[in-house]
Amino acid sequence: MNTFGNIFKLTSFGESHGTAIGGVIDGCPAGIVLDMEFVQGELDKRRPGQSELTTSRNESDKVEFLSGIYEGKTIGTPIGFIVWNNNQHSSDYDSLKNVFRPSHADYTYFQKYRHYDHRGGGRSSARETIARVVAGAIAKLILQKKGIKITAYVSQVGDICLSKSYIQVDFSNIEKTAVRCPDLEIAKQMIALIQSVRLRGDTVGGVITCICHGVPVGLGNPVFGKLSAALSNAMMSINATKGFDYGMGFNGIHRKGSEANDLYYRNKDGKIVTKSNYSGGIQGGISSGEDIYFRVAFKPVATLLQGQLTVDKDGNEIQLEVKGRHDPCVLPRAVPIVESMAAMTILDYYLYNY
Amino acid sequence: MNTFGNIFKLTSFGESHGTAIGGVIDGCPAGIVLDMEFVQGELDKRRPGQSELTTSRNESDKVEFLSGIYEGKTIGTPIGFIVWNNNQHSSDYDSLKNVFRPSHADYTYFQKYRHYDHRGGGRSSARETIARVVAGAIAKLILQKKGIKITAYVSQVGDICLSKSYIQVDFSNIEKTAVRCPDLEIAKQMIALIQSVRLRGDTVGGVITCICHGVPVGLGNPVFGKLSAALSNAMMSINATKGFDYGMGFNGIHRKGSEANDLYYRNKDGKIVTKSNYSGGIQGGISSGEDIYFRVAFKPVATLLQGQLTVDKDGNEIQLEVKGRHDPCVLPRAVPIVESMAAMTILDYYLYNY
Amino acid sequence: MNTFGNIFKLTSFGESHGTAIGGVIDGCPAGIVLDMEFVQGELDKRRPGQSELTTSRNESDKVEFLSGIYEGKTIGTPIGFIVWNNNQHSSDYDSLKNVFRPSHADYTYFQKYRHYDHRGGGRSSARETIARVVAGAIAKLILQKKGIKITAYVSQVGDICLSKSYIQVDFSNIEKTAVRCPDLEIAKQMIALIQSVRLRGDTVGGVITCICHGVPVGLGNPVFGKLSAALSNAMMSINATKGFDYGMGFNGIHRKGSEANDLYYRNKDGKIVTKSNYSGGIQGGISSGEDIYFRVAFKPVATLLQGQLTVDKDGNEIQLEVKGRHDPCVLPRAVPIVESMAAMTILDYYLYNY
Amino acid sequence: MNTFGNIFKLTSFGESHGTAIGGVIDGCPAGIVLDMEFVQGELDKRRPGQSELTTSRNESDKVEFLSGIYEGKTIGTPIGFIVWNNNQHSSDYDSLKNVFRPSHADYTYFQKYRHYDHRGGGRSSARETIARVVAGAIAKLILQKKGIKITAYVSQVGDICLSKSYIQVDFSNIEKTAVRCPDLEIAKQMIALIQSVRLRGDTVGGVITCICHGVPVGLGNPVFGKLSAALSNAMMSINATKGFDYGMGFNGIHRKGSEANDLYYRNKDGKIVTKSNYSGGIQGGISSGEDIYFRVAFKPVATLLQGQLTVDKDGNEIQLEVKGRHDPCVLPRAVPIVESMAAMTILDYYLYNY
Repeated sequence: MNTFGNIFKLTSFGESHGTAIGGVIDGCPAGIVLDMEFVQGELDKRRPGQSELTTSRNESDKVEFLSGIYEGKTIGTPIGFIVWNNNQHSSDYDSLKNVFRPSHADYTYFQKYRHYDHRGGGRSSARETIARVVAGAIAKLILQKKGIKITAYVSQVGDICLSKSYIQVDFSNIEKTAVRCPDLEIAKQMIALIQSVRLRGDTVGGVITCICHGVPVGLGNPVFGKLSAALSNAMMSINATKGFDYGMGFNGIHRKGSEANDLYYRNKDGKIVTKSNYSGGIQGGISSGEDIYFRVAFKPVATLLQGQLTVDKDGNEIQLEVKGRHDPCVLPRAVPIVESMAAMTILDYYLYNY
Repeated sequence: MNTFGNIFKLTSFGESHGTAIGGVIDGCPAGIVLDMEFVQGELDKRRPGQSELTTSRNESDKVEFLSGIYEGKTIGTPIGFIVWNNNQHSSDYDSLKNVFRPSHADYTYFQKYRHYDHRGGGRSSARETIARVVAGAIAKLILQKKGIKITAYVSQVGDICLSKSYIQVDFSNIEKTAVRCPDLEIAKQMIALIQSVRLRGDTVGGVITCICHGVPVGLGNPVFGKLSAALSNAMMSINATKGFDYGMGFNGIHRKGSEANDLYYRNKDGKIVTKSNYSGGIQGGISSGEDIYFRVAFKPVATLLQGQLTVDKDGNEIQLEVKGRHDPCVLPRAVPIVESMAAMTILDYYLYNY
Repeated sequence: MNTFGNIFKLTSFGESHGTAIGGVIDGCPAGIVLDMEFVQGELDKRRPGQSELTTSRNESDKVEFLSGIYEGKTIGTPIGFIVWNNNQHSSDYDSLKNVFRPSHADYTYFQKYRHYDHRGGGRSSARETIARVVAGAIAKLILQKKGIKITAYVSQVGDICLSKSYIQVDFSNIEKTAVRCPDLEIAKQMIALIQSVRLRGDTVGGVITCICHGVPVGLGNPVFGKLSAALSNAMMSINATKGFDYGMGFNGIHRKGSEANDLYYRNKDGKIVTKSNYSGGIQGGISSGEDIYFRVAFKPVATLLQGQLTVDKDGNEIQLEVKGRHDPCVLPRAVPIVESMAAMTILDYYLYNY
Repeated sequence: MNTFGNIFKLTSFGESHGTAIGGVIDGCPAGIVLDMEFVQGELDKRRPGQSELTTSRNESDKVEFLSGIYEGKTIGTPIGFIVWNNNQHSSDYDSLKNVFRPSHADYTYFQKYRHYDHRGGGRSSARETIARVVAGAIAKLILQKKGIKITAYVSQVGDICLSKSYIQVDFSNIEKTAVRCPDLEIAKQMIALIQSVRLRGDTVGGVITCICHGVPVGLGNPVFGKLSAALSNAMMSINATKGFDYGMGFNGIHRKGSEANDLYYRNKDGKIVTKSNYSGGIQGGISSGEDIYFRVAFKPVATLLQGQLTVDKDGNEIQLEVKGRHDPCVLPRAVPIVESMAAMTILDYYLYNY
């Protein structure tokens, strides 16, 4: 399905080689000043070809708002927006018309849809994320007014891992390198790895860490409305994701309960807080007021510039050589998408309560 | 919220110390023979006190169906069912009336609900899973008829890890030990660890692995209806979960793309299959026909039989001693819950297509 | 489907000849005092056999709450409730096992469900309304605290019509007669008509009028979330309904626009109000603060104590004689159901805003 | 809210004086040939200024598809479409910036939205129906392939009423006059009435009748998923509607049950059919296979070219004179909208079953 959210809802449309990508945001509160520069800036962050690490596609996507805004503010009606598709090299994909690319969605799509658009991955392509980032930017603007800040960064590429806690990391460094890792030493190593992988025509995966700061207590519902489940659903809807964990996550299994509890105490201001935050800001599915932090694992992207053996629709084996422009590592580009999905999810739950 | 699913929908109700736990299943196809023994058997699997590993609560929950069934078959109308609450020791919890148990949902619930039921964790308690297991059992019955089999087992407890691929594991061993690990050697080590942790009044977490075999190709939708996102949402809705990954998951980050692609070929029967299954049976959010396998991480349970420092509603520090009956490790009991959530999710997507 | 509402949600279950009828209410705010007498009283109002007009079924339905309530107040968790089925004469229906009753749902159900429960109409029976009335009673309690009052009454039976505006009617008279018409003269005529129809073994239909007083301005959304559409959907979900209109409705067609506009003016208290209320309290799909009033048309009930020619499942013509206990006119019994559906709808929209 | 449907879903956006009107259709099956001429033709039918009866606004709306279509067929992905707004006279509305037009949505909108777009009624304007008609056209194309035909016509204007049953009416006459009434004699009278009303600067309402032919048995669900409830919800979502009834509707109250039952018999082909169709093709909320027929009542449009007394935002009384271009009767233009809503509803339920 193509709609995300319950109250703040994004319905997206558009194939990467169709006429336009776009979306409709329903449930956006009225009276929000729309900072167009900020929205366009977020969209620019996701573009490939913005650094030496990524491909040269150099898409300059300008978002156009068609409704829902009057005199610079939202009016509470659905916000329709589009980004025209240009600069898409359809011919790069012509050799792929009848071929199933390994680990791509082609085979599953063919089985499902029969008549489908083979060009550029149709709706499984990363260009579909444009709509997410536009809606996410608007969500961020609204959350910022409530003192809620969403920050994501690359914390692992292949075997290169930033193992420090987010508390010890300087967020202002994130945008200083193309790889969006806030530890400049580790960032260098990551860049070197990506370059070498690229030269070999291979790809590499990694992990993005995200922190949601200032989320008030009480968002989420026990049982089936857990905020942790909603965040995992949001992250796992991003292309190329393979895993999600929050708080101590998969690594926390090595701790005993006595080593992993967040003990309550009353602080200097008389407020009830916890000494630690192993839970990652969510207890029993409901936000606790502490920082929410989680990780998203991304697989190595499946388009290789190496040759690969595969089959076409009739089952004949063929050697696949893909020309064109592809990424050795999607992690840096995925950072704004993770932030967008987090912003939309948090806002959706926020509006449910307030 | 308290409803799970889009077509095969479970709405659950009931607090652990209220009158009854129950649910309503809507969207169950008509004409399914309801194997009552099987359903009751699944419910028995989740019971504590069934082995030396778990607590002595010894709840014998008998499910009672109130509607939706006629002459032993489903009739397509909503299936209402209840399990009466007995054998709940309310007095065990009386010392907790005004106290926030560390890493429990108490504090977040108090902030959210004001007037809430402190006894036994209300709806955040594991007893709420009764409804999930009943609905999951019915879902399994329906899937079995379509040749779809769901199997889960404990693959990690603390540092003890069953690292073999599921392909090399013998499922018939799962129920042979209390810890539900199919490798009997590893199972022994797990049991020893749990016993020692229990004696110290501490708790330990772990990982459950789940395989969905025989899922046809085409379930799921790209963008926001990905089957991977739905499964993660379902698993993360279970109490005490901290993470989800599928296919090569978090561990796959160490592979390059060239080492992680599932290459297509035509097999002896002329069918198009893959040589490997790093994707875990889901490509681009849609099932590929291969086995779907995923992991769910559980944190160490938060109720300790050790004393702990905490605060009460007025912020006064108090020493918490919890009497009663608690689990050092919830993993074995969570296995039928993971299977239930998987069955309901797969069935929901199955009914969407067929 | 078996769920009604978006925020205040009722999921109902139960066949009239099954074990129990019941429901789960999700989204009920916490802290509401549950006036059990009031709820049981509303349920008693819908019972047949409470007057000389209706049949002698004499069902005494006692509602039992299973969850969601602690120390007499709602706790914000789902409220599960049941009413056990007794006093249902299954044998009255044995002659109907393979026969399609004219204008009943039998034929359509058979075509749809294959294996279905023929006894007493299964889920198409009026007993399914028990769940609606319980949830409606709770909704009324919540609305009353906000100064919102829902009142319905019978305004037409066959050709006997109460044509006065609701403004000129005395609501305290509604419960004074079995027919629930607030004009005692007209009520007498209605009763006489129903008696004569009953003696002939025939049935008659009518109209119920409903007023929602004190609904604040702003409930509803333009386009697809119109409060008028929601109310019509709610009313048309009641068995035997054939039509809905509000404000001047179908009769207003005879007016010109100049005769039908509600002109604004500022009243003595300085508040902006309208001189008239042809719109029926809803403008552009949003409540205006004025009384919402609407009508629901009910067809004559389809079970006749006269013989009727029909066919069985094999298409053979047979003469249908129905024994048992049936109503010549369902209008009086439908009054609490109309109020319940109105209360649930208004509350659902109220909670969306506040 | 701005989304209609459960499976075949339309999300619409756009204010009449904004940049564009548009929508996204999700859930459209793949492989449907999109007859662009037919879609544009349906859109042309709703335009004002196409006859001497309506206003001279002369909007020529051309729909543009942005996604979801490849080589002329739908591909199963969301279909995004827009219609650019031009030819909207903003200045006609400048006198209205702070004034509440009687029986318009202005007052309720102001109360609800604070900051809203006063020009042309924003989203409460009839231009929003563009999206409905585009989606409805596509729905009709799909239904036609299944042998399902939707036909609507004007059956009443003011006191002029076409009282014949739809069975005796010649549908080929509908488009022969501007008023879209299939009885040419009655049509003349209706046109005369509308002209005279227009000269007086007044407005008049009426009724549209709609027939859905060829709907298979089994669409709809008892309880809350009744097809009759869904149709009423769809119709009542149209601007200016005041009532809905189907089958014998409000007029059927005058019949006794014995005079209103549809008796079953086996016809020459051995098929089980009914002798009559008082039920209007829906029994117990489920389609019976017979023609579904219903009526929708429209109030006289609220914009008058006569002066009217009203208040502005500060409560000061002012005399309202509206310049511009307005309709004395919206009924003819509403015919394609009624058909669109019926088509979308029937298709939604059809896809649920098949």
